[in-house]
Amino acid sequence: MPEIVDSRDSATMKEDHQVISPWVVSSKHGGKIDYDKVIDRFGFQRIDETLVERVERLTGRPAHAFLRRGIFFAHRDFDKILDAYERGEKFYLYTGIGPSSEALHLGHLVPFMFARYLQDAFKVPLVIQLSDDEKCMWNNLSVEESKRLARENAKDIIACGFEKTRTFIFSNFSYLGGVFYENIVRFRTCVTANKAVDTFGFGGEDHMGKITFPPIQAVPSFPSSFPHLFSGKDNLSCLIPCAIDQDPYFKMARDVAPSLGYQKPALIESLFFPDLQGETGKMSASDPISAIYVIDSDKEIKTKVNKYAFSGGQDSIENHRKYGANLEVDISMKYLGFFLEDEAELEDIKKEYGAGRLLTGEVKKRLIEVLSGLVERHRKARAAVTDETVDEFMAVRPLPHMFD
Amino acid sequence: MPEIVDSRDSATMKEDHQVISPWVVSSKHGGKIDYDKVIDRFGFQRIDETLVERVERLTGRPAHAFLRRGIFFAHRDFDKILDAYERGEKFYLYTGIGPSSEALHLGHLVPFMFARYLQDAFKVPLVIQLSDDEKCMWNNLSVEESKRLARENAKDIIACGFEKTRTFIFSNFSYLGGVFYENIVRFRTCVTANKAVDTFGFGGEDHMGKITFPPIQAVPSFPSSFPHLFSGKDNLSCLIPCAIDQDPYFKMARDVAPSLGYQKPALIESLFFPDLQGETGKMSASDPISAIYVIDSDKEIKTKVNKYAFSGGQDSIENHRKYGANLEVDISMKYLGFFLEDEAELEDIKKEYGAGRLLTGEVKKRLIEVLSGLVERHRKARAAVTDETVDEFMAVRPLPHMFD
Repeated sequence: MPEIVDSRDSATMKEDHQVISPWVVSSKHGGKIDYDKVIDRFGFQRIDETLVERVERLTGRPAHAFLRRGIFFAHRDFDKILDAYERGEKFYLYTGIGPSSEALHLGHLVPFMFARYLQDAFKVPLVIQLSDDEKCMWNNLSVEESKRLARENAKDIIACGFEKTRTFIFSNFSYLGGVFYENIVRFRTCVTANKAVDTFGFGGEDHMGKITFPPIQAVPSFPSSFPHLFSGKDNLSCLIPCAIDQDPYFKMARDVAPSLGYQKPALIESLFFPDLQGETGKMSASDPISAIYVIDSDKEIKTKVNKYAFSGGQDSIENHRKYGANLEVDISMKYLGFFLEDEAELEDIKKEYGAGRLLTGEVKKRLIEVLSGLVERHRKARAAVTDETVDEFMAVRPLPHMFD
Repeated sequence: MPEIVDSRDSATMKEDHQVISPWVVSSKHGGKIDYDKVIDRFGFQRIDETLVERVERLTGRPAHAFLRRGIFFAHRDFDKILDAYERGEKFYLYTGIGPSSEALHLGHLVPFMFARYLQDAFKVPLVIQLSDDEKCMWNNLSVEESKRLARENAKDIIACGFEKTRTFIFSNFSYLGGVFYENIVRFRTCVTANKAVDTFGFGGEDHMGKITFPPIQAVPSFPSSFPHLFSGKDNLSCLIPCAIDQDPYFKMARDVAPSLGYQKPALIESLFFPDLQGETGKMSASDPISAIYVIDSDKEIKTKVNKYAFSGGQDSIENHRKYGANLEVDISMKYLGFFLEDEAELEDIKKEYGAGRLLTGEVKKRLIEVLSGLVERHRKARAAVTDETVDEFMAVRPLPHMFD
């Protein structure tokens, strides 16, 4: 009897009471993901100080805060990318998003901000997938609405400051076909239905679209999927910055790559961006009060932070002065760790807040300033992005100076 | 535990000891398919004399021999197509092939010869799918080889005499994308993995490509998959001439169509073309001595028919004269039923052979003449088909006079 087997060895890590997949992130340990266990179970390598220093030496600039502060904390073969880079070999970057909301939230920005840094620092091209087909299939959106959201999200992505001369944005509905589709077919012949179900936690009563999707996200990690960019460069390495919930796609791509004659893509992977209301895993775009959006007004940001940002402060000022804040659970502190660029100031806040000399309200005040500034800059940048700009980034075209 | 269920209610009809799917056709009853049971189990309507007469009346010409002789023996909603045609509403035809061999065999020609008749008789457009992606996934062919075979097969198809002004040929590798892909995604959300597995007999250890394929063959039965042909005609009906093993795809298309707002496609379905060595179900392109190919020489045809065509004649001339041939199992007689156009001559041979007055050798001699003539005409027509002709038929273009 044919059947799809649910294996304990699944990447979803059920036996650790943690479930991590592209669609579900949960943990029984008070919502907190145990990242050490993740590293162990997924077989990641940890990003340590030596690796960060090496990046700084090779790029001749300080590492991005996300790298220095362990937000991008794990990798697969990033060291090999650096080895090759040191020998004068370039690579390309690949990241993406499933367009499920009108505007991005702060968590969405993280891989894009980091990809922009990598693109600038290494002078390499970047391909960005908008998986509108995925969101159409998962979120019960119409094709038309998925395509519209993809273009709206593209505007937010472009507003992160990517260079048009080195960036190709594509949506699956607009780009799927040609060698991209050929690679999808090649990929599908290498993975059994059981393996797909097991890796991603699908069930037989799920619609068949779910089983068909993983190769579509996986194959942009093979350069031949972009003949207009990498024709004749089938050996080019790919580096994928992403949050760890996306790892199963690329683990599968790495498993399949050798049998198709491609390089295994390398990965550099981040922690989850926490919910405003407390660390329960991955931020959900569908719950507006658990996220701050790039279209939120200053007033909304202020209200959301003050009202919902989970505090690690004590229950009374007296206790707070006495015991200090619990920085491990304090969301304002975590958000500052993502977005307050000044290293000295961040350390100072951490010390003062942890010692109880700063109150939650004061930390929140600073966070509101930082986020308002970030969102204000994003809003201005996004206002300058027209439909024509989107068309230009999404045009299937060569990028003549992408490695310059 | 997620699993894929193998149901007794499957379209593969296992409880009748007959298996009919696009990839496997077998029967425990001496290889003979019980078509009455097929009609009953699949829920077809039978094509009767009244329907044939109606076709002749509506088209103002004699029905094709395949229709008169019950080779196309079953249908789904063909009567509704005729009702609409009578009201002045046109439709489009859709058929196709999975390119698995260098050249077509006689069995492959059947749906194309019939499609050509329908196209001429009703003055309607025809789309032809070359499912090179399917054959790549099933037959372990490289993408390049599958694409090459698709173009070779296109030459044989064009040689059947289709009009360029009313025919669009596409290969999945070359055409997949755009609205065609959008329809595939829409379709996939309407069918569970279990349903796909059950309908087509896939197993969990099959590669995931298999589960992904059925919608790709199904959605060309929705006119919006061809915006360059049928833009604004989303309500156009589709009629699919095919052998019954292809029915599961289109049964699924009919199940899904209403929820996507499309018409259910109609079908007109044929018996299997029998193996040279005897009726064991579907002819296999992979066994050269069980099939006659359109590239076979006169000598090869003569040898194959004389040596392998299963005879219903008796074991001695005396017995043959006494009991006559068993026409039910005689392959030469069956092939003449497909390809000898002269109705009177066919009836005469049947009568004389059945009564033992004609010997197998004499019937085979006539069959060799008929097939040699057919193949010779095909060879000439194919020689006139250039790569440019293939490009023209496969160009994504409007067909301005397709309904004239």
